[in-house]
Formats: sequence, structure tokens, C-alpha cells
Amino acid sequence: MIRIIVDCFGGDRSPSANVEGSLAALEALPDVSLVLTGDRELIEAELAGKKYDKSRIEVVHAPEVIGCDEKPTDAIRLKKESSMMKAVALLRADEAGEYAGMVSCGSTGALVAASTLRVGRLRGVIRPAFCPVMPTMKGGVVGVCDSGANVDVTPDYLIQNAVMGSLYMKAVYGIESPRVGLLNIGTEAGKGDDLRKETYPLLAARDDINFAGNAEARELLGGDFDLIVCDGFAGNVLIKSTEGACLEMLKKLKKDINSSFINKIGALFMYRMFMKEKEFMNYQNYGGSVLLGTVKTVVKGHGSSNARAVEKCIEQVYRTETGSLNPSIEAALDTGE
Amino acid sequence: MIRIIVDCFGGDRSPSANVEGSLAALEALPDVSLVLTGDRELIEAELAGKKYDKSRIEVVHAPEVIGCDEKPTDAIRLKKESSMMKAVALLRADEAGEYAGMVSCGSTGALVAASTLRVGRLRGVIRPAFCPVMPTMKGGVVGVCDSGANVDVTPDYLIQNAVMGSLYMKAVYGIESPRVGLLNIGTEAGKGDDLRKETYPLLAARDDINFAGNAEARELLGGDFDLIVCDGFAGNVLIKSTEGACLEMLKKLKKDINSSFINKIGALFMYRMFMKEKEFMNYQNYGGSVLLGTVKTVVKGHGSSNARAVEKCIEQVYRTETGSLNPSIEAALDTGE
Repeated sequence: MIRIIVDCFGGDRSPSANVEGSLAALEALPDVSLVLTGDRELIEAELAGKKYDKSRIEVVHAPEVIGCDEKPTDAIRLKKESSMMKAVALLRADEAGEYAGMVSCGSTGALVAASTLRVGRLRGVIRPAFCPVMPTMKGGVVGVCDSGANVDVTPDYLIQNAVMGSLYMKAVYGIESPRVGLLNIGTEAGKGDDLRKETYPLLAARDDINFAGNAEARELLGGDFDLIVCDGFAGNVLIKSTEGACLEMLKKLKKDINSSFINKIGALFMYRMFMKEKEFMNYQNYGGSVLLGTVKTVVKGHGSSNARAVEKCIEQVYRTETGSLNPSIEAALDTGE
Repeated sequence: MIRIIVDCFGGDRSPSANVEGSLAALEALPDVSLVLTGDRELIEAELAGKKYDKSRIEVVHAPEVIGCDEKPTDAIRLKKESSMMKAVALLRADEAGEYAGMVSCGSTGALVAASTLRVGRLRGVIRPAFCPVMPTMKGGVVGVCDSGANVDVTPDYLIQNAVMGSLYMKAVYGIESPRVGLLNIGTEAGKGDDLRKETYPLLAARDDINFAGNAEARELLGGDFDLIVCDGFAGNVLIKSTEGACLEMLKKLKKDINSSFINKIGALFMYRMFMKEKEFMNYQNYGGSVLLGTVKTVVKGHGSSNARAVEKCIEQVYRTETGSLNPSIEAALDTGE
């Protein structure tokens, strides 16, 4: 049994989406058991009447919830009875190696801080980094590491993002030798700010990375890279502007279709296609952002995650465990110092 | 007569797109006259047989072209006979105030360096910054300053981007009090890296800027901001990922339409709508990126600019001149030191 903790509060649709997603994951992954943290009464109310294997679900009571505007360090210190910190505490105290990791859709800042400080870093890791994935136009996925965990960084961070991200794309998405692009403002070597200029030759010199040179932001979805490496600020801009542009385009299409009768008729013919486009860009289908480099796998779900997204997040923890991601990260980064 | 210089080489479709766009601008703007720089024979071959007012076009011979991979400082020093450097030299020597500015679709790096060093900065300006505009879903436009001129910056740069960008959105797009957003990874004050944390209170303290707080990358096209302020690295990622996502979405739609007979029938009904969507996202319709803060207006057209885009770039120079942009930037930034 692979045991995974699900923080059931903090997301916009919690606890119902979290509980429903958990039950779907139990259904899909027969060798998984789950621990749900949060207000016991509310969680049990969600579970009531549902059909599931009771031996594979445990509820751990945690009456508090961390708000999105709370200062991360305060949240860690003062909200010990919150659903997120209870989950973190279980991972921290897990000397027997009972848990594979956790999923949370709550405050990103609190989750990063608690994961780094309480769950702890793998040996050799400077700072854990997020690695969300997006669908590409060639049918695969592309990872972006880091998308917001660390915003003030040095070349060392970017090297580790490249190493950890490559191992992740291999372990979880089966890409044998992920093509790594350094996010930059031009494709030629020597382009960019000081950070990129220093990082480029360091990436090129490593033989444990399949470095494919600089990647421009417009190349993200094209399918020519399997992993884009960047600082958390630029990565956040990259992911959010791409998501934003796709959503706005779909909204505009919908509005324009509804503005004319003849467009509506056309859209009837294309209904299935439009539904497919919508699903293709729907981040709920791709789970959350794995935080790479922590002792146990932590997956951050989108604040607006629905049940499907929570299920996918649980699957991500599962796949890092079955893919032996953390041992391989430690083997790559632990220099024994 | 407002006199504008057009560098006719360096773009992917030069000189034909540049010459054709120039003639279209002459047609659209009766009080404009143009100077075309570049190989005289090739330019005159493009002009041959076209109908236009010969008194409003002059050709200045420049046999060389700057390549995209040439080092900017070398290009300035060694390529004095290039179409770009000839245009820059005309602006530099313009003591009589004959020219309003120039348009080029050539090497960005060379253009920024030559504009800053040869054309010169307005009094009070630390470093000129690009300010391209994009269409928003509410029907207006949003500026992004800076999108790539300066990648290693301090808060002072961002303040100037906000001031210059606001004046630009007012002078050229008629937005009385542009709502300025600081590009950041979260909306709450106090979010972001050191640069953003330091810049936020400085922006908030200025009464010549309508500061509307932090803006997340996903909000770019939503229409709630008129100007997004950022460093050139993040701005470049913002613009290029948005362009990239929109283009990839359109490509995917097209492919999916062509993959099924019933979709093709639906698309016939929606042909006019799809053409409109395509035009809406077509950056060729929005001209180029103005470089704000130089003594004469410099507009950088996309490398792949067609005639329409070149025409729009010329119109942008024209509108900065009729809108008295440069005097207003100098009035705002020149502290007399």
C-alpha cells in the first residue's frame, strides 16, 4: 500500500472536491490508501453515503484552516491545528516511512515554507522548486521548473531545477532523456541577463542533463522541449500568461459564437471539437505542481482544483513514489559534503 | 510635414514589406514624408511602377545590412554603412529638428544600443525601455514596459518604465489616466522578489502614476490594466508566451478543424468569425514596440513584419510626435540635476 495524505481544506472547493477526488483516486489506484486531514465532522459529512473501501481511508482531525493572506512563517508557527500543518506534521514524524507524500490546495507560501522547513530537503538540495506540467501541441507535456517557489536565485538553483526537473519528467512522464531549455529572451548563447549568461555554460557542461540551449517563452507549447528551466519569478509569469492567454481566447471564442446565429449553427457542428479544446487546456486534467527536492513528495493543487484535479494530484504523488523519484534526486545531487 | 525615417533592411520580408508599408503610410497620413535607408538600387526596384507622391519620399543609400547574430557594439562601430546605422546617423545629426523618429525591423540589440548611445536619451532617462501593446478582451489595448531593452535592472528603472509608459498610453492611445499594474507573482502587496518588494511602495508613493497594485501574468489580456510595468526579462517572457499561446491555440484549432469533415462544415459557417479571431491576435495589426526615452522616437518592428506592420510602425512614430510624447517624458523625468 502506498499511503498518501490529502489536506482537505484551503482550496476554493474544499472539502467536497478534495474528498470526492480522494475517493476517485482510491478507485483508480488499488494499491493506495489515504489520510484526509481537516475538520472531521465536515469530512465525514462529505464521505457519508458514498461507497468506498473504508479500510483505505483514515481521517485525522484538524479544526483550523490557513488563509491565503496569512504570512507563511506565522501560519507554520500559529496554525499547528490546521489541515495543512497536520499533514506536514505527519510527514515530518514519519520515521517508519509510512507515507509517500501529501497533496494540498491551500496557501502556496505556507506550503513551500512548511515543506522546506518541516518536511525537509533531500540531501544536496539547496531549495525545493515547483515543477508544473502543461500540454504541448505535439501531444506530450512540458515541465516548468521553477514556477514560483524561489524568486531570488543564483545559477546553482537553476542547475538543480534542471537536474530535479529532468529526473521528474523521466520518473513520472516516462521521458527517457528530457530536452532541457533555459528560459531566455533569445535563442543564441550569450543572450539574457547576468543570471542566464552565467547559467548557460554551467548547464552545457553537465553530462547528466540533455541541455538543448535557450528556449524563448513562445516555444513553451510547441513540443520541442520537455523541461523549461527558470527562476520562480519568470516561471510564474510563463505559466500564468500561457494559462491566461488560452483561457481568454476560449472565452472570446465563446462570446463571439454566441453573438451571431450563424456562428451558433456552425458551433453545433463543432461541439465535440470545442469540448475537446476546452479539455485540452483545462489544467484540472494535469493535476498540480510537484514541489521537487523535499524528503517526501508534496504536490500543490491549484486553489480552484475540482475533484478531478485532486485525484490527479494524488496520482502525481503515487507516480513519484513508484518511479523512485526522490532516491534518484538524492543520488544526483548529494555530493556527500 | 512630419518626417520619419524607415530602415528598409534587416527584417525577414525586407525591403519589399518596408517599402510597401511606407507607401501605405504616405497614403494614410497626408502630412508625413519619409526617408528610406538601404541599398538604393533594391529600394528603387521596389518603388518602380508604384503610384505615390515622389516629393514625399527620399532614398538614402546604405549598402550594408546588420545581421541578427552580430554583436550590437560591433555593429555600431563597424557597420556605419548599414541601413540601420544610416538612419540612426540622420537622427543623431538632426540639429534642425527635421525628423520625428525612425522605424526598424532589424536586430533588436543593435537598435537598442545605437538608439541609446547615438540618438541619445532624453534628459532624466536612465535607460530607454520598450513598450509594445497588445489587444485586450475588452476591446482596448494594454502596454508592457519594458519588454526586453533592459534585463538587469533596479527599482529606479521600473519607476521610469511606469512614468514613460503612462505618458505613452495617454499620448498615443488616448487613455487619460492609465491604470498601472506591477507584474508580480501574486496580487497582494509584499509579494514577489526583492526587486518587486522594493518597487511596490515607490510606485504607490508617486502621484503622477495611477498605480493599481500588483498584476499577475494571467491578467494581461483581461482589460483591467492599461500598462504592465516590469523588467525586460519578465516582460519579454510575458509578451512572448502570450503571443505563443494564442498562435498555438489558433494552429491547433485549424488542425482539428481539418481533421474532420463535420468540423469543416461547421467552420464554413464560422469562417468570418475565425478570420476575425485571427486578425484580433495578429500582432502585425498593432505595429511594433516603441523604445521610450530616446531623443527621437524609435520604433522596433517585429523581424517578420509585413507591409501592414511597417505602416503601423510609421503611424506609431507619427502619433508620438503629434501627441508630444517626448517633451512630456522630459518634463516628468528631468529633475534638473
